Amino acid sequence: MRVCLTVAYDGTKYHGWQLQPNGITIESVLCQALSDLFGEEIQVIGASRTDAGVHSLGNVAVFDVSTRIPAEKISYALNQRLPADIVVQESKKVAGDFHPRRCESRKTYEYRILNRKFPDPTRRLDTYFYYYALDPMQMRKGAAYLVGEHDFKSFCSIHTAAESTVRKICSIDVTKEGDVIAIRVCGNGFLYNMVRIIAGTLILVGNGTIAPERVREILEKRDRGAAGPTAPAHGLTMIGIEFLE
Amino acid sequence: MRVCLTVAYDGTKYHGWQLQPNGITIESVLCQALSDLFGEEIQVIGASRTDAGVHSLGNVAVFDVSTRIPAEKISYALNQRLPADIVVQESKKVAGDFHPRRCESRKTYEYRILNRKFPDPTRRLDTYFYYYALDPMQMRKGAAYLVGEHDFKSFCSIHTAAESTVRKICSIDVTKEGDVIAIRVCGNGFLYNMVRIIAGTLILVGNGTIAPERVREILEKRDRGAAGPTAPAHGLTMIGIEFLE
Repeated sequence: MRVCLTVAYDGTKYHGWQLQPNGITIESVLCQALSDLFGEEIQVIGASRTDAGVHSLGNVAVFDVSTRIPAEKISYALNQRLPADIVVQESKKVAGDFHPRRCESRKTYEYRILNRKFPDPTRRLDTYFYYYALDPMQMRKGAAYLVGEHDFKSFCSIHTAAESTVRKICSIDVTKEGDVIAIRVCGNGFLYNMVRIIAGTLILVGNGTIAPERVREILEKRDRGAAGPTAPAHGLTMIGIEFLE
Repeated sequence: MRVCLTVAYDGTKYHGWQLQPNGITIESVLCQALSDLFGEEIQVIGASRTDAGVHSLGNVAVFDVSTRIPAEKISYALNQRLPADIVVQESKKVAGDFHPRRCESRKTYEYRILNRKFPDPTRRLDTYFYYYALDPMQMRKGAAYLVGEHDFKSFCSIHTAAESTVRKICSIDVTKEGDVIAIRVCGNGFLYNMVRIIAGTLILVGNGTIAPERVREILEKRDRGAAGPTAPAHGLTMIGIEFLE
């Protein structure tokens, strides 16, 4: 049967999701735990290949196995073999041809900025500390230009393998709670570093360096050099994926 | 001059606040950084000697020094010499006889419980994961019996040096936001492990093991054995201290 896992992790210690020759990754730890559990080599297909330092509350991975363990119990057995910074939230049986990167989906990411005078050591691993005052109202105005279907070439790291740079953003919400500004982006797919470049650009809007209207011009230029810097990985969390089929 | 520091830390890696022969402590790291900065041996007096694993957003420490650095700039110089998990939030000059444990104060602590089916790896360091469903309404009812001046002997670890076990709790709020239940306690002083024993007891109320009214009986018994277990340290954060003089 094909089993689908919802995987949460603190990405601090890992070299991202994807298997690598050097450096421990979420995928390698997960495959090792699955292989130990089932006594055979198991490979997974991940939905989102998050970068080093990026966190997740709901990434998705599928794998095939023959077992008498009911699909929904696999999460418990697996969590006993996983370190505390990787926790499977759900396991369930899916159709044998379900592929998490080949079916239509809505992914949600959140970028969190801790905007205060001094860092908060208890929030240092999952927020990006930023000293200068940010105006969330201005950031919200700038973000609005990105909603819809656009060519996001300006918001994509140049070393990308993507054929088309057209994507659709369904919504971007900029909220402030206490001293944390959260940029929550939902879309049908994201280019390499896209959310982090959006965050880096909205920070420039928020601190007054550029006007919110400039975001539209940046988008139209289709030039990575026009957008802001790539915000650090540790502020980013993949929230979850909704599959539409 | 006497300088007062507000100190935030992630207590995960430390053997608590207080200097110890074996094990690195917040106080030892802070004293080392101060001694390096001023080129002389500096000792601090801490307001709250938090246990191993307990976090802080606003613990207070004072020390004496002769320096030309303005008191309010010491925080910046000090943070450059401190690790990322200890951050001074403020430094200011205080009266030469100010002693943070000898003047009247209100301390606020928060105990956080992550109440869900599976652990969230991104919240594992500053919340206590608890699987069984807790009812915050019942916990609130139980907590209400603790407000006021009482003999808290039942809520104090037996190996204490305190002469009197009478303390005054000004308020206890039990709130639920998402899947985090926060118990916020404000009082004029706390016995050893008091907030963690309160949390451990309110968890028993929340899961239905004991009725809220039992909290009053536990208080009246003045017997540590009557209260619930001491909840784990990593769920506890010292929020801050207000000095009343």
